[in-house]
Amino acid sequence: MNLDALYSELTLKPAAKIAMVVLDGLGDIAVKENGYLTPLEAAHTPHLDALSKLGAQGRMIPVAPGITPGSGPGHLALFGYDPIDYQVGRGVIEALGLGLDLQAGDVAARANFCTLDARRIVTDRRAGRIATEVCEELCETLARKIKKVDDAEVIIRAGKGHRFVVVFRGKGLQGPLTDADPHREGLPIPSAAPVDPKSAKAKKTAKLVAGFYQQALPLLAGKSPANGFLMRGIAHQPEIPLFADRYGLKAACLAVYPMYKGLAQLVGMTKIEGPQTIAQQFERFHAERASYDFFFIHYKYPDMYGEDGNFAAKKKAIEEFDAALPVLTRQMPDVLAITADHSTPAPIKGHSWHPQPVLLISEWSGWDKLDRFTETGANQGSLGVFEAKHLIRLIQANARMLDKFGA
Amino acid sequence: MNLDALYSELTLKPAAKIAMVVLDGLGDIAVKENGYLTPLEAAHTPHLDALSKLGAQGRMIPVAPGITPGSGPGHLALFGYDPIDYQVGRGVIEALGLGLDLQAGDVAARANFCTLDARRIVTDRRAGRIATEVCEELCETLARKIKKVDDAEVIIRAGKGHRFVVVFRGKGLQGPLTDADPHREGLPIPSAAPVDPKSAKAKKTAKLVAGFYQQALPLLAGKSPANGFLMRGIAHQPEIPLFADRYGLKAACLAVYPMYKGLAQLVGMTKIEGPQTIAQQFERFHAERASYDFFFIHYKYPDMYGEDGNFAAKKKAIEEFDAALPVLTRQMPDVLAITADHSTPAPIKGHSWHPQPVLLISEWSGWDKLDRFTETGANQGSLGVFEAKHLIRLIQANARMLDKFGA
Repeated sequence: MNLDALYSELTLKPAAKIAMVVLDGLGDIAVKENGYLTPLEAAHTPHLDALSKLGAQGRMIPVAPGITPGSGPGHLALFGYDPIDYQVGRGVIEALGLGLDLQAGDVAARANFCTLDARRIVTDRRAGRIATEVCEELCETLARKIKKVDDAEVIIRAGKGHRFVVVFRGKGLQGPLTDADPHREGLPIPSAAPVDPKSAKAKKTAKLVAGFYQQALPLLAGKSPANGFLMRGIAHQPEIPLFADRYGLKAACLAVYPMYKGLAQLVGMTKIEGPQTIAQQFERFHAERASYDFFFIHYKYPDMYGEDGNFAAKKKAIEEFDAALPVLTRQMPDVLAITADHSTPAPIKGHSWHPQPVLLISEWSGWDKLDRFTETGANQGSLGVFEAKHLIRLIQANARMLDKFGA
Repeated sequence: MNLDALYSELTLKPAAKIAMVVLDGLGDIAVKENGYLTPLEAAHTPHLDALSKLGAQGRMIPVAPGITPGSGPGHLALFGYDPIDYQVGRGVIEALGLGLDLQAGDVAARANFCTLDARRIVTDRRAGRIATEVCEELCETLARKIKKVDDAEVIIRAGKGHRFVVVFRGKGLQGPLTDADPHREGLPIPSAAPVDPKSAKAKKTAKLVAGFYQQALPLLAGKSPANGFLMRGIAHQPEIPLFADRYGLKAACLAVYPMYKGLAQLVGMTKIEGPQTIAQQFERFHAERASYDFFFIHYKYPDMYGEDGNFAAKKKAIEEFDAALPVLTRQMPDVLAITADHSTPAPIKGHSWHPQPVLLISEWSGWDKLDRFTETGANQGSLGVFEAKHLIRLIQANARMLDKFGA
């Protein structure tokens, strides 16, 4: 019997209010240059310390041993979906990051302007890194002139610098396609082709992409330096079972950055708009408490400063989070998980494979005799080291919404 | 390659005496009301303390993250069977609990007397909770008059209060069936139907159940308040590979309560009858030591008091167990595992999903530098947090009966 089917069979109606608080990229490593402390260990965190005396700890493998996840797989695992079974293309993630409301079946591509010579050979893959304003102008030109390719709607949205996103919305579309990108200069733009040559839907999609190039390239002719563009990560938004159906939980997203709202929306969470700071997000949790069972609360900054390799700023971001915590704990959620989608160690300046720490608090979590919430402490927690995709099941158990299995 | 097949291939003849001692429901959680100690932590356990200095510790996930097991899945996992692959119906568990000697293929149902009105509508699902003696009398009446339905033998055994068990023994029977129970008052008794409508064996079984109702209801007509009965959890005893074949171990069960004897018998262990106390069970281990390789020794009381929410009594049950331990350790088993089938935290007053602690001792286990055997200590043990179904393989390894894999 399939484990997901068993969980579904055991799922009861929720009577608890659940908060999953994600400090993006929280996990770190203890190295000499930082005095063998992680930012979480070095930070002054009186409120997290107090919470650690109420809960169980552990560490979570974001995807599989040694695998460094992007934000997509990291969050899908937190939402309880195996990130290897549910892969979301880069185009889709980029579109979500730009705040586009994608629908299942939409095909999205990351695109960027480039420079072509007279023989349509790519001479600069980033078109001299044009300014964002130039990119916006070019995208507006394209969007004004190209509404449809064949029977599919086309949506174009400018990103930062030379980057933009193209979405095709129509019936019977499917990715993935190979990249319309030679990945180095000196070559022409290859056609995007179906990765699965037997897929009729992918063939149709490849024809759409070719049609888009046919309409768009003439509109850029004569522009300089951006007279061409490349498309990568062309794939459709996959069908993902809805969070509400899978866990019996009505869920809301309290995130500030569009990509995380988009990832929550992918699984059918309601996006709550407005809050800009973590304190405002916590306030809003209380305001919306009656309307939802589950709240995904996202805090971006540990990841941002981890990516910068800025230990001090990452530590400070954690302290600022800690300072806001009393707003949340004014009325405790019945089940509270504080964790990360992955580690972003400052010494690595990027996401990593290191298991992120997790603190799980409920009336039934028990206390692991740990006085702080840290990576080193979490190693000794009762939750052990486990795959992040299982966290949601532990949360359901603590919400007392998983029935007993067998007599 | 299938992992079980690999283990089989590597299995050598045993030259060790193994004892798996199960303190039912031992695991617990540290909460404020109990001074942040579990019963195991609070208990005075000089003999367990001494044993902890000989062994390795860890915690075991009974089934899968967040899943609370019944006694059936809990023990099947301890016996090394994936409890999701080997599901045993509630009727079978109940029959085992009443001491019935089931055979593979027998179909068992939990039943209870109810009250029907003139139109055969259920007016009381528990027939006013009749006394056990009344139930026994009614069961005797039914058993005397109904020996067979079609070509299947019928076995009826009274339980506590209004509860009893019906077993159908014949060729080509199979469950599961839907319940012959409306699950609330004001409705007639529905027919039990095959869960898999394509199963001819389940259809035959459903016909048997209907035939049983046809014979039994007239015998109860005019009785009050128990003039009807409901049947639930109707399923056959599954084919389970024998313990001896699977592990190369001749196994015996030293349990006091019928259900645990029944679960051991399900996998082909020999039931050793007689001992009523844990000290007597340990004595009997020595007496039978030469005759078996593996002893499953079951101690019920931590679970019983955990279910009652009685922290003090659970602690005392652990202390009584500890006091009896010198009887066992007078001549140490070559491999000794002390663990639980699941946690039954006193604050929860029931089984739970929390990983149970395990202590594994052999000449080859090593010592984890832990001075006591507790939940918190076990978090730091060398065995880590692992699925309970793997324990038997660690036991085999410590018994030096798993050959090297590969060159």
